[in-house]
Formats: sequence, C-alpha cells, structure tokens
Amino acid sequence: MFDAKKEKDKIVDFIRKYFEKNHLGGVVLGVSGGKDSGVVAGLMTEALGKENVLGVTIPCYSRESDREDALLVSNYYGFEMINIDIKDTYDTFKEEIKKLGNFTEKELENSDINVKPRLRTMTLYYLAALYSAIKGKTYIVAGTGNKCEIYVGYFTKGGDGVSDINVLGDLTVDEVIQIGEVLHVPEKVLYKTPDDGLSGKSDEEKLGVKYSDIAKVMNQEPLDPEIKEKIERLHQNSLHKFNIPTYHKCD
Amino acid sequence: MFDAKKEKDKIVDFIRKYFEKNHLGGVVLGVSGGKDSGVVAGLMTEALGKENVLGVTIPCYSRESDREDALLVSNYYGFEMINIDIKDTYDTFKEEIKKLGNFTEKELENSDINVKPRLRTMTLYYLAALYSAIKGKTYIVAGTGNKCEIYVGYFTKGGDGVSDINVLGDLTVDEVIQIGEVLHVPEKVLYKTPDDGLSGKSDEEKLGVKYSDIAKVMNQEPLDPEIKEKIERLHQNSLHKFNIPTYHKCD
Repeated sequence: MFDAKKEKDKIVDFIRKYFEKNHLGGVVLGVSGGKDSGVVAGLMTEALGKENVLGVTIPCYSRESDREDALLVSNYYGFEMINIDIKDTYDTFKEEIKKLGNFTEKELENSDINVKPRLRTMTLYYLAALYSAIKGKTYIVAGTGNKCEIYVGYFTKGGDGVSDINVLGDLTVDEVIQIGEVLHVPEKVLYKTPDDGLSGKSDEEKLGVKYSDIAKVMNQEPLDPEIKEKIERLHQNSLHKFNIPTYHKCD
Repeated sequence: MFDAKKEKDKIVDFIRKYFEKNHLGGVVLGVSGGKDSGVVAGLMTEALGKENVLGVTIPCYSRESDREDALLVSNYYGFEMINIDIKDTYDTFKEEIKKLGNFTEKELENSDINVKPRLRTMTLYYLAALYSAIKGKTYIVAGTGNKCEIYVGYFTKGGDGVSDINVLGDLTVDEVIQIGEVLHVPEKVLYKTPDDGLSGKSDEEKLGVKYSDIAKVMNQEPLDPEIKEKIERLHQNSLHKFNIPTYHKCD
C-alpha cells in the first residue's frame, strides 16, 4: 500500500542527503504550471528551504494561463521565480534554418517539436551556472519526469530528459498526485490535464496510451494485451534515450 | 595488441548491423575539423555510403580555419556538408539573459561555456528530424566522444554528451588516431592538437591532465599516483552526467 505521507518524508530526506553529500546549495526548477513541477517544487522547498529554490518559467509562444498556474505554485511555496522568454531565440534559430531552403510545415513538424524542450533545458543549466556564480553556492537542475513518462520515453532526448536530480522517476502519475495532496500543491495545478500547451492535444492523446494503463504495466496489474504490447513497444523504442548505443571492443 | 585495421572493420560492421536492425537510413554528424569527428566521418562513410552521411559545421564565433579543416574531411570522403551559423541564436539568447541584470564576464563564464555545445546538439537533432522528413528515411545523430574524454566527463551534459550512436566510446585517443590512419583521415585533421577553438587553450590544458595518462588508467598501466588520483576524481565527479541521481521507492 502506497503511503504518500511516508514516501514524501523519504523523498525530502533523499534530497537533503544528496545535497549534503555533494556540497550543493540550491536547485533550479522549470515550473510549467503542471502537476509534476508543482510536486517537485513542494518537495524541494520542504527539503532545502524556499531561499534555495529558483523557479523559472520559460515561455515560447505559450499560453499566458500556464504562466499564471506556475505563479500559483511559487506564490504558495514562496520561492523566487524568474521568467526567460525564449521566443526570440527560437525565431532566430528558425531563421537560420530557413537559409537551407523552403520547407513545408509538415517537413519541419518533428524538428520543431523538440527544439523548445532543448532550449528550455539549456536555459535551466545556464541559470544553474549563473546562480552558482552570483550566490556562491552550487545550484543543480531538478528533473520532473515521472515513472510513467520515463517508461514510454515521453520526453525529449537532450531536453527534459536531462537533469541533475530526479525525485519523481520511480512514482506513477497517481502516486505523484497523492504526494501533491500531502504537500498541498494548488488544486488547479495538481488536477490539470497534462498537455504541452501547444498542440491542443493532451499528452495522453499524443502518446496514444493512458498513464493509468502504463501504471498497470509498472504494477503488473491485468491489462488488455493489445494496450500492453503498445506500451512495451514504446518502451523498447525509447531505450536509446537512456543508453547511447556504443561500440565496444569486446564485441 | 591493438589491430587498427581489424578494429576498423568491426566498427563498420557494428554500424551496418545497428542501422539494419533499427531500419535507419542516414547519419548526421557535426564535423569540427578535429580528429574525432574526422574518424567518425570515415567510419560512417565506409559503413553507410557517402550518400547517407550528412556533415554539419555549426560555427559560433569560431575560427574560419576550423571550418576549412572540416571541409578537408567532407571533401575527402565526398559526403554532403551544410553550415548552420548559430551566432545570432546565441546572441539572442544572451540578450534575453541580460534582462535579468548586469552580470560580469566572470559571473557568466561557466554559463556561457556550455551554451554552444547545447545549441550544436539541438541543431544536429533538428537536422536529423528534417532530413528524415525530406529524404523519407530515418536519420540519427552520431556522437564523437572517445573513451578518454568520456571517462573524465569532458563533455557537456545535454550537449555533446547526447547522441544516437557512438563508435569511439571504447577507444583511447591513441587508438582513435590509429584507426584514423587506416581510414586516411586528412593528416592536418588527424594530428591537430584538440581544443575548443575558443579559449586559446588546448583541451588537455583546460582539463589539467593528459589524454595519454587517462589511457594509462584505462589500460591499468603504471602512472604517478597523484595524476591517477586526479583522473579518478574527475571520473567520480562526472558520474551524474551518465545516470541522473534518482529517488527509488525501495531505498
């Protein structure tokens, strides 16, 4: 039986010990206005104190409402929040690509999708190094991927797949929400349907499977074999995101 | 005894089999004008054919001579080469950061260092997805990190540390050069002292240890204990770049 209160305490302890052992001072966290970053915000604030948490919103033609939801989180926990708009950076990069030729929207679709998460991660690391320099203590980047997302590879390689500490990576979506309830993450954030704020589709619609079904695979609960196979296929196809296929002399 | 000719054949076989198994069509490779990307270029061309290799130079206030060296490689092997200048993208991002406040060069030093490798990796992935769309076959991104660099973590997390296939990851610098000789990588490229083309310092100067000494650690050859300790410390401190420290429920 999952004990959310107990698990929350253990995570807080994990964060504190990791910071102590590695002489770390603070954490930089991208706050999207969704539940995962909301829960990580609550955990980091309890573990490190609000003065050691830096929240960042990184809009790129994003909905204003997502930024407002992100501010619900930082206002509740009381940590500093900054905003870095990457729209102009994104546009400048796209201008450079245009010099290669005239490509259709469809041809650019898959390329464009992953640029924003990569620019966001670049921004978080930029701020971690900058705050380390100006605050005189080491900042690291917090990841927000949960167990279900990670299992099916629902993240961008070199983008949101990259972080320095991940505290949700072994928790299913349902467990994340339960921990969020213990931490009093603002309800609007905690129960929001996850999406990328861009395509008009929810994450589950884009992924083609439900998080609750992924959790069933994780927990070895009964599940329609076709859905199970689809989830396992997504998992297999994403393995290269975790370990770069590498030639070994012993082969 | 390292047999460079035999090893080269095995790597070519590894690449071909990986591409076949995963139904892949082409490779995108950042060509820096240095030996690692030169050797990877030779291996990929032999394994896949020049028509399935896309070379990219991605200058950002870089030396023109590095681009000329990169062209020595693509001209020798005959694959397509494109140029994406990321200077304006870099500058636009820096403008956005300036809105946070006036920071000194020194405060920005560590932040700035890693932006370019991250923008470069973003560019390679952008092109891999774009070429997959326009050529109707799947392109992946080739990594160029060798065993010595990887062991001491001399790469940018989320930057050149990210790729889809790495064929030099188990080869020391000396072994990479021997394979480059078999492949006839242009001598100017193969024997060039590696540097980042920015700081005026060689990679070894910045790292504070020699590649040949790292190779001694890898090969368990005798080495000054102080140098060995320094190398092992670099290795330990870079472990977080390979596996994100993650909370596990079983802890």
